[in-house]
Parts: sequence; structure tokens; C-alpha cells
Amino acid sequence: MSQNQDTQQDSRISVALMGATGSVGQRFIQLLENHPWFRVGELVASAKNVGKYYQDAANWRLDTPMPDEIGNMKIRALGSDLDSPVVFSSLDSSVAGEAEDDYANRGHAVVSNARNHRMDPDVPLLIPEINADHLGAIERQRERRGSKGFIVTNPNCSSVGIAMAIAPIERLHGIEAMTVTTMQAISGAGYAGVASYAIIDNIVPSIPGEEEKVETEPLRILGRWDGEQFIDSEFTISAQCTRVPVIDGHMFCISLKLRNSEDLRRHFRIESLILDSRSAINSFKGEPQLLKLPTAPERAIVIADGHDRPQPRLDRMRNNGMTVTLGRIRPCPVLDIRLTGLVHNTIRGAAGAAILNAELLKAKGLVGTDA
Amino acid sequence: MSQNQDTQQDSRISVALMGATGSVGQRFIQLLENHPWFRVGELVASAKNVGKYYQDAANWRLDTPMPDEIGNMKIRALGSDLDSPVVFSSLDSSVAGEAEDDYANRGHAVVSNARNHRMDPDVPLLIPEINADHLGAIERQRERRGSKGFIVTNPNCSSVGIAMAIAPIERLHGIEAMTVTTMQAISGAGYAGVASYAIIDNIVPSIPGEEEKVETEPLRILGRWDGEQFIDSEFTISAQCTRVPVIDGHMFCISLKLRNSEDLRRHFRIESLILDSRSAINSFKGEPQLLKLPTAPERAIVIADGHDRPQPRLDRMRNNGMTVTLGRIRPCPVLDIRLTGLVHNTIRGAAGAAILNAELLKAKGLVGTDA
Amino acid sequence: MSQNQDTQQDSRISVALMGATGSVGQRFIQLLENHPWFRVGELVASAKNVGKYYQDAANWRLDTPMPDEIGNMKIRALGSDLDSPVVFSSLDSSVAGEAEDDYANRGHAVVSNARNHRMDPDVPLLIPEINADHLGAIERQRERRGSKGFIVTNPNCSSVGIAMAIAPIERLHGIEAMTVTTMQAISGAGYAGVASYAIIDNIVPSIPGEEEKVETEPLRILGRWDGEQFIDSEFTISAQCTRVPVIDGHMFCISLKLRNSEDLRRHFRIESLILDSRSAINSFKGEPQLLKLPTAPERAIVIADGHDRPQPRLDRMRNNGMTVTLGRIRPCPVLDIRLTGLVHNTIRGAAGAAILNAELLKAKGLVGTDA
Amino acid sequence: MSQNQDTQQDSRISVALMGATGSVGQRFIQLLENHPWFRVGELVASAKNVGKYYQDAANWRLDTPMPDEIGNMKIRALGSDLDSPVVFSSLDSSVAGEAEDDYANRGHAVVSNARNHRMDPDVPLLIPEINADHLGAIERQRERRGSKGFIVTNPNCSSVGIAMAIAPIERLHGIEAMTVTTMQAISGAGYAGVASYAIIDNIVPSIPGEEEKVETEPLRILGRWDGEQFIDSEFTISAQCTRVPVIDGHMFCISLKLRNSEDLRRHFRIESLILDSRSAINSFKGEPQLLKLPTAPERAIVIADGHDRPQPRLDRMRNNGMTVTLGRIRPCPVLDIRLTGLVHNTIRGAAGAAILNAELLKAKGLVGTDA
Repeated sequence: MSQNQDTQQDSRISVALMGATGSVGQRFIQLLENHPWFRVGELVASAKNVGKYYQDAANWRLDTPMPDEIGNMKIRALGSDLDSPVVFSSLDSSVAGEAEDDYANRGHAVVSNARNHRMDPDVPLLIPEINADHLGAIERQRERRGSKGFIVTNPNCSSVGIAMAIAPIERLHGIEAMTVTTMQAISGAGYAGVASYAIIDNIVPSIPGEEEKVETEPLRILGRWDGEQFIDSEFTISAQCTRVPVIDGHMFCISLKLRNSEDLRRHFRIESLILDSRSAINSFKGEPQLLKLPTAPERAIVIADGHDRPQPRLDRMRNNGMTVTLGRIRPCPVLDIRLTGLVHNTIRGAAGAAILNAELLKAKGLVGTDA
Repeated sequence: MSQNQDTQQDSRISVALMGATGSVGQRFIQLLENHPWFRVGELVASAKNVGKYYQDAANWRLDTPMPDEIGNMKIRALGSDLDSPVVFSSLDSSVAGEAEDDYANRGHAVVSNARNHRMDPDVPLLIPEINADHLGAIERQRERRGSKGFIVTNPNCSSVGIAMAIAPIERLHGIEAMTVTTMQAISGAGYAGVASYAIIDNIVPSIPGEEEKVETEPLRILGRWDGEQFIDSEFTISAQCTRVPVIDGHMFCISLKLRNSEDLRRHFRIESLILDSRSAINSFKGEPQLLKLPTAPERAIVIADGHDRPQPRLDRMRNNGMTVTLGRIRPCPVLDIRLTGLVHNTIRGAAGAAILNAELLKAKGLVGTDA
Repeated sequence: MSQNQDTQQDSRISVALMGATGSVGQRFIQLLENHPWFRVGELVASAKNVGKYYQDAANWRLDTPMPDEIGNMKIRALGSDLDSPVVFSSLDSSVAGEAEDDYANRGHAVVSNARNHRMDPDVPLLIPEINADHLGAIERQRERRGSKGFIVTNPNCSSVGIAMAIAPIERLHGIEAMTVTTMQAISGAGYAGVASYAIIDNIVPSIPGEEEKVETEPLRILGRWDGEQFIDSEFTISAQCTRVPVIDGHMFCISLKLRNSEDLRRHFRIESLILDSRSAINSFKGEPQLLKLPTAPERAIVIADGHDRPQPRLDRMRNNGMTVTLGRIRPCPVLDIRLTGLVHNTIRGAAGAAILNAELLKAKGLVGTDA
Repeated sequence: MSQNQDTQQDSRISVALMGATGSVGQRFIQLLENHPWFRVGELVASAKNVGKYYQDAANWRLDTPMPDEIGNMKIRALGSDLDSPVVFSSLDSSVAGEAEDDYANRGHAVVSNARNHRMDPDVPLLIPEINADHLGAIERQRERRGSKGFIVTNPNCSSVGIAMAIAPIERLHGIEAMTVTTMQAISGAGYAGVASYAIIDNIVPSIPGEEEKVETEPLRILGRWDGEQFIDSEFTISAQCTRVPVIDGHMFCISLKLRNSEDLRRHFRIESLILDSRSAINSFKGEPQLLKLPTAPERAIVIADGHDRPQPRLDRMRNNGMTVTLGRIRPCPVLDIRLTGLVHNTIRGAAGAAILNAELLKAKGLVGTDA
């Protein structure tokens, strides 16, 4: 398990982690252990932890051991000079906005999990399987900054799963409207985000700010970069977000109205539209699969067998947590199609998403020696 | 707490409980303790428990003690002659259909929580606050049976809450369509219905048969009896039902399309339609409140304060579990109005519902000395 | 439910609550609603809430509604002059020590749930059923303070249950040693004390400071006041404390070695010693029962029927949470007797304990008009 | 992941699984996937599943996929002729006793997880790290049976963890007495063994038959085979077993009295005895480590860092669930030493234990071509 390669000879790209002690920061460290392209070279955390060894600063909560070489690294201050060309950010949104801009302006590729820059007009909100073309915005961003640095972001943890779930249907039929109810895991709020007294034997039908993200981010994700600007996909989303007593894995129940639904359904039986949708999902592939990126799952979306799937505890770790699992794709008597989905919120919905983004940047020559 | 009244002089109506040892049966016993109108006179359970004392047959799981006089009652066989004019049924659906018909034909008022007869053409599917007029069907049923006996039913535990949540809006504006996602408590499946290994840290997005009930029962409930038959309400429901690790209390997230929505919204801002809906909910009263039935809550539906309510653990016991709690009533960008609701599934959604039904029957002279 | 008495004519003793917004503070408010002797007259909380209405300051988490008259009270600052002769303290231990001394010196009867003064040489650590004689220390304390004010404390939430569980056996046979493993509910750590991510599907075998309290407080509780000082009971306790995913109710598994065990067991079979212990538990009564204090349960300790009891969810609310429930009293092959117990940690283990203490003070003339 | 080896050329030993559809049976299948020495060749389950494909008979509940080749195997009847020299049994104890004897008499090596034959006078109750010498009993057993077949068993899931936790201390100092309180995961009762309604927000302080096993099996395990019979270790255990809402991982809190405790403590400070114990634990190795058995963890017992460890969710999967994790080793004021431990109950405590036993048999030449 341990990393024995001599760092003198280690040709992997050094990455810095900002927000290294938090729950997403810990996932970054776990997922980057033995990564073939990147090595964790610098750790950045909040002021109170600066100068400490990581093992003394972090309250490690994962079920795999903290890598020794990480435990013995000293934590650096936010704002200090960093050597790593790639900076992963899982900073809290209260500080992420400014810090990420700062490092991008200094020439770093900032790969962020924070919400602050997601909707900026020249910052890609990236799911590599869906919208790798959004990388085109980086050139515009570099021009604005007068630097080779830039920011790319991954979506909110629920938005990732929802956008992936509907992408094949959207590409196939188009979507006009969607209602979605989410049942989100406690880890989505960070380690101390949800008190146990608030959630055991309970549900909280409110997650501040979440519904706004779920109602807007998928439109950006499913849109395109026209060379000048993002052209968002145009449909309407209604989201109701709840917190449930599940550790990892965001569930969602979706109903979709297809574009030109009445026309479509005049020509096709709904069962046949659903069969086509299933085929589109089953054959869905994107750049990460074509490029064989290290963190890419063989299949990004899987329809689970069984009438009672997906389930968080049974399906969240499919392909190391990088695959979105769907189930119960069936006609909706009110709209057109309904289905249930699941995404691992701290892997495909956060740290794993950012790492896949960075891998895409590397494969496209946007970071690394050529960048 | 204990029942000291001399049963010789006890003028209360004797009731029999069929399915007395199950989780709903236990709730019946708990809720009927010290009831002013009814006393538990007979207990009926499955063959293996016949002849046993209740305290030896039942695995009592409630947090109030089993009443002593119930513990010392002997369990009778299904099919045996019963003296009680009123028979509550929480039998399993595998046996309820025939047994309930049998006792109705023998002259008993059967007040059932089972699903079997809910959609029969002359059996009321009753929520006393909404459709007391459905009692009109009893006369037709008595004719059919050639007996003064009859069956009335209460809806499925989710249907109760959903029908109550939308009734004031339906009465005010009319409804054209509804999508609903439920998050249902484990007690809805009975004491041993959900294995802990299946549900801790998990969600199961499937409850066999549940979606069909939720998509049909509210239409019957919100319809009317025209003297000859039930005229169901005509709108479309799409339900996605899930099981969550909550002990008691079914949550649901609803989106509604109002009848003649386009017309309405041409004339009124959605905020104003919502204000009217809130007023209708706040002033909602039905027969149980007017008749001051013993189990009737002062208010059957309450809009909770707070942006993050209702919550099962905090709101399920409102008015002893007989009130449905709503929250987050707000515009829906896809349909018209969305909201969140909660019902105590084994009280308002089962035993309490049936008792309220029986109280209505008594107040209307359909059971008791005059019946 | 609501408090309709005209406060002009309300002859009840006004009490102030310090730490009113926390989880124990909320329990105080819930348990004091409609109390026959006390009324909540003043609320004190931390600086950030001073001047706010209680309903705006408190995040009410109980399943009964916040009383209206409390919601509309303004919160006062710690240190401000209080009119109430009785001050309940559920302050955090970081501030409780000084504040409680201050109000006692100013003449108030401070009834505290905080740990700071529990082991002071003239401060009663009170369980009214066990050691009402410890009130004798108040006179000494008043002398020291030069004031009629004083502090009485209730024990740690686990210590209460454990001391009550063993008190009848200790009075009967004497105890030489005890090992105890606790399984403590999350509410013992306050509303936000245990992150859900830390405890769902988990156990944490460490509660800082808890084992020290459990190993010392019962000795003080079971000791006596000799007119000059507390003479602690002399036996040895070994405690292993764990946190479990239970909302309310601390469980504990005890093994006891009786005093002069070898002598005793030479003369008596262990089964006979256990029968005697059961009798002593069943006939256990203390001052609260004799004085019929309003919050006193009819029986302070109950041995539950059933081989698998007590259980937190089924037994914690026995007698409104004021009764300790025991079960499985049986021979221990290593020591002498073992048993399992349960205490509602925020009622009998905190707010209810303090209220019972205040009632004893009132009944003994130590607070109120005569004090 | 899938098993591509041509079974014609597969030189691995075929094993049969009895009880293949249950929760332990599923773990066997999971842990045997790609095993270097064994391949699952036959599946045996209860009558109702005979003739079905495994994928149709088993309700697969693990978070890794069911191996395809297993899903397509047909289930055979209990009692039918089996070709596999090794038969793993996770049968229910109601049928295991007779069936295991039967197959042993027919010449199979039966490696059982059931309790029935554990205390037989010539059946090894095996933890390979501790008592590999017990294999000596097999010869005696073969004589009795007049067959080359035999039974070996692994201990109860709690006994495994407890015996491993104390083995190094027992070997070093000797043990005179032990009290232990267990907090056991729901998976210990099988998939449907604990109803969610029984255990969410709850603890059940009773597991029928468990305390007897925990009070006897460790004595056999820590004893020796003298060539003729098992000489059990002689000390006294007092166990209190509880069920807690944890999915996998049995916790236990132990207090130990050392042999000749008074003598020892006259000569050594308790801190020094504990340091020695820690060293013994840290250097503990057994046959599986020396023989490098495929399923053997590098270290069978690990003392976790941190004052609040072990914890089920964080520590149960250490070394793929085969390592017992200890923590909080410290002086006990009543006995001598206390500590907290954790074992993965369905891996090291069940399926993994049996597989390690079979590996030891193979390494010792007791199964396979030479057997």
C-alpha cells in the first residue's frame, strides 16, 4: 500500500490539496494514494493547522489507513507559494472564491470542488463523460487572467448524479422538464455538518442552497461551449432536497417530460421510448472511457438489476464509487419517464470527480509539462 | 391509567380486535385504553395464538405498558362468534378479505385497516374529515348483504397523509396532476417487515404494491358518493415510494398541477394561489372537528413553522399522532405548487384512522344501540 | 396544555433557567410546563442570544411544542440580577463553576446539572431517593458563603442510573467492587455533541471525562453527611464508557462483588442473595415517594419483565422518564451479581433530576417563602 | 474480477458450500472469489431452493457483485453426493449437527461455522493463530468415524474476537478471570435475524445462547490437545451480551484478572505488566503468518492508535476483516487490566475464519491430494 517510489525519480505531477483536513480532503488523499499520474506534494489547510503534521491536524475518518507519507507532511498556509502545478480545492465556500482565483492568477490549474466559480462565464463546470468540450473556455479564462492558470470545477454532489442520470436521455430525446426529490447522505454536509441528534430516526426536508444548485447546474453541464460562451440547456427543473440517515450515497427519484413530448408519444409507445433510453444509457461512453483515464469507471452509468435497486449501501461503491447506478426506469403517468438513481456523493460527487477532471486536463495537455 | 370501571356497568360499546397481536393491533389497544365510547371486549388472532392469554401471545413493542385487563384476555379464533357489534380489523391481507365479509354478513360493523375491500363499489374508503358523505354507501352495502352489517375501510398509511395534505387545495382550486415521492417508515411494514440489515445506512426504493395504492386511493377519497356509486376524483398521480430508516412517520414530497392551471395563472400570481391554499389548509375542518369526536385532533392539518419542517421525529406525534403536518409550501417551477408532508403511519395512517372511522359511525348512529 | 393562570395571582415560585437554549435547558422547559410549584420566570443564555426572544434563540428539538409564554420571553445575560429565588443551571462546565458560585453568593438556591461543584466538600450531590440527608451540608455552605444562597447538584447522567441501580443492594449487602460498561445515548453530549458521521453504524468507545465521574460520583452519592463532612462509601468502581447510536437512554451492564462476599456466600446461596436484592429493589422508596413530590415516580426503580429488557426505546419513558429500569439480575461467575440497567439521561439523568432536587428543597423548607 | 480460468485445467481444490444462500454463505462466496487454493464447485441449500440457479435463489446483500459463475450454478440438496473433498458449512444449527457428521463420515473434510460440534471431544475448535496443535484431534476423530473425513469448527463470532484479544496476555501472564460486555452487530443474527423495528434507536441486552458460548469457547480455544483429549484452559468468564444498531463488527469491553495476580503485582507495577502485554500483542504471530496462508493477515491483532478506537465502522475491515483491533489497554481498578476490542463478525468471526481453517488444513496436508 505504501508509496515506495523515490520522490527524486517520481515523475508524477505534484498536486496541492487545499482544505486537506476536511472530509472531502481526506477522500482526495485516499483516492490519490498510488495514483499513476499525480502525487500529493503539498497540503494546505486553515490557519489553526498551519505548521502541524497532517497526522496531528486531521481527524482521519476513513476506513483505510492514512498513508504514512501524508501523515508526516507539514501543513502550509492558504496563500503561501505552492510548487505544484495542479491545486485541488475542497475549501469551504466562505474562502474558496478568492483563494482559487488567486492561485489561478498565479498560474496554477485549480481543480475545485467548491461552488463559488461553478457558474462563472468562462469556468468549466465539468463532468468529463458529458461536456469535455467545455474545456474550450479555459483559453478564454487564461486570456482574462493574463496567466496560464485557470479554474475548472465539478458540480454539486447531487447535480453530478442527476446530470449523469439524465444525460443519455437528454442527448437522445431532449428534455423539457424534470421534477426530482433527493435523499441525501449526511457526509454531504462534511464531517460535523449534521448532528446525530438531528438525523437518527429522522429526515430533514431542507438543505440550504441545495435546491438552487440542483435546479441550475445540470442545465450548464448539459449545455455547450460555443467558442465564446456557455449555451445552457433549456429545460426546467423542480428539486426537493432532503437529508436522510445514510452515511454515503445520494439517492434521487426523477420524473422527466421529454422535449416535444406530445409529438413523440403520438408516434411512439412510451415503452418503446423507454427501451431506447435504456439502450442509450447502456451504451453511454465519454472521453474518460475513450481516453482510459486512470479514475474512469469502465461504465459511468449502470442500470442495476432488481426491482428494488439502486440502494445506497449496496450500490454506492460500484466501480470504486465512480459509477452512477440507476433503476426502476418506467413510464410516469404525469410526465413521461421516471427513474431512481444513486451517486456516491464524496467520490463521484466530489473528490473522485475533481480527480477525473484533472486527469482529463492532463490527457488534453492542459496540465503537465506541456501545459 | 388502568381501567377501573366495573364492566358490569360499563355502558361503552364492546369492540373486537382482529389481528390483535400485530403492530397495528397493539396500536389499537394502546389508543383504545380509556376510550370514552369503546372498550376492547374481544381479541382475535391467528390460529397459533388461539386460547393463549394476550400477554403470552403478543410481543408488546410499544413504549407504554400493555393494559393489564388486555393482557389477561384470552385470544379467540378467527371465525368464532363475536358479541361485539364493532369489529376492528388489522388482519393481514391474505386473510382479511374473506373474514371481513363474513363478519359483515353476520351483522357486525367491520372497521378495517386492510386493503382488500378498499376499492369495493359500496365500501367507504373513509377519512372522516374529507368524505363523511361516503357513509351513504353503507345502506347499499347492507342491501347487498341482507344484513345490518357492513365494512368501512381506512386508506393505506401513505394515502391518508397524501389525501389529507392535498384535500384543501383540491377543494379550493381542483387538481389536475400530482407527482409524489414518499419516504416511508419501517413500522409501515409491520414489526418484522423490514430487516435491520436491509435498512440501516440505506434506502430501499421499492415497496411492493404501494405505488398502486397511492396512485388510486386518493382519487376515491377525494371523490363523492352520488347515492348510487362512488364518483372518483379525476386527476393523475405519479408515485415513487421508498423505505427509509425511520421508525414511525411517512414523509412525502409533492408537486401539484392545479386544474385549469393556465387559466388560473393567467389571472393570479402563483404566490397568491399559494396564500389561498395556506388559508384553506389553516381553516380546514371536517365532521370529526364539528362533532368533537373523541379521537379527532383540534386541527387535522397543520402547517409547521420553520424552513426545515415537518420532520418525522419532531412532528409525528402532533395531537397524539392524528394531525398531518405540512411544510415548505412553495411554487413549483415545473407544475404549480410543491410541499412536504408527514403522517404518523400507524396512528393517523392505521389504528387511529380506524378508531376515528368508528367514532364517526357511532356519532352518525350507524353503530351502537340505534344501529 | 397552555398556561392560563394569571401570573399576577400565580403563587408558584419563580425559577430562572441558566443555559436555557441547550438540550437540557429545553428539557427543563418541557418538564416545568404546568409544574404545580415552580414557574419559569427568567431565562439566561450565552451572550450571543441575550435580548432575543426565546423562540428566536432556541433551536427547539423536542417532540412537544415550545410553550408560547416561554417563546415570548426575552433572554437575559449571565451575571444579570435575577428575581427568582431558584436558579436551575444547565450551563456548560466552562462557565458554570464561577456563575453558580456567584448566584449562590448572591442568595439564590442554585440547582445545578453541571459537573463543576459536584465534589465540593459542602455541596450536596443529590439523588433524593438515596441521600436526602446530604442536604445537611447546605447549612455549612451558607456559613461559608455568608449568604442564604447555596448550590445543590445532581450527578452525571450515567452516575444517576448506576447509583440508583445499586443503591438497594448496597444498603442491603454492602458492595466491595463493581465493573460497569455503559452504552450511552447521543443526547448525553448535547444537541450538536456527536456528529452523525461519527456514530451511525458505529460505536465510539470513549467519552472524555465520563469514566472518572462514574468511578467517583456513586461513592459520594451512596455515602453520608456526618454533620461536618461527606463520608464517601468505600468501594472500587471500574467503568468503561461507550457512545452508541441511540437517541435517549443510557444502558449499563454491571457486575458487583458484595462486601464480605466470601462470608456471605459461605452462608447463603447466590440465588438467595439475588432474591433478597430483588426484594430490596422492589420495595425501594425514598423521600420523594414519601413526600409525594410532584416529579417523583411512584417507583424509582423497576425490574422489567422479560428476558431482553430493559431496552432504551421501550423503557426509557417509564414514569415520564423518572424511573430507572433494571433487568437480567443474575449470578456473576466472576464477581457475585450482574444486572443490566437503563436511565433516561436527559430526564432522570439531568433536567428531571434537578427538578426533583428543587422539589425536595421546597418540601424541606430550603427554598420558598420560608427559606 | 471474473474467473476466467478453464475449469478443466483448474488445479484448485473444489469446495462445497452448505448454507450457500444465507448471509455467511454469501460471505464465503465473496471471500473465495479468486482464491488461489480453493474454487467453489458445489452449492448446497435448503429444500425450497434445490434445483434453482443461485442467482434466483439468493437475495444477494453484499456490496460487491455476485460472481457470474456462481450465479449460474445450480443448487443441490442437502444429503446429496458431493464431489468436493472440502465442505464448508454455514448451515443453521437446527440441521448442521447431523448433516456435518454425515459428510464427515462419508470422507469429506467438513469445515464448519455452526455451533453443533464445537465442543465435541475430538473436534478442533480452531483459531489457527492460537491452537493449530488442536489439529491433532483429527486423527482420533478419523478413527472414531472409520473414515478419512472429519469436522473442524471455528468459534462463535464473539468468541473469536475475545479469544484472540486475550491470547497474547494469557500466554504471557495467565488469566484467572474475565468480565466482558459485548456490543454485537446485527449481521451476527443473519440477514433477517434482527427486525429494524427492534433495533433502530435501541439496544437489546440479550442474545439467546450467546453468553454460554462466550463463557466456554475461549477456554477450549486457549487450551491444548494432549494427544488424547483437549485440556481446557481454566479460568472464569462472565459475559453480558447485547445487540446494537451496527451493521458489521462486534465490540467488546474486557476486564481481566491475571493468574497469581497478587504475586505479580507485588513484584511489578501494573503499568509494566501492561507494557509487557502490549509487546506480546504487537509481536503475536501464529501458524497462518509463518505459513503465509492466503487469507492470513500480516498481523492478526493490532492495537489501534487513538484514545477512541477501535470503532466498528473505521476498524472492522482492517486487513480485509481478518485482523482483531484492540484499544484502550489500561489498568482496571477492580481486576487488573481492561481493554476494548473489535472483530469483524462475518469475516474473522465466520466465513473468513472457516477459510483460514481450511487453508491450515491444506498447508498441513490434511486436505488436498495427500489427504
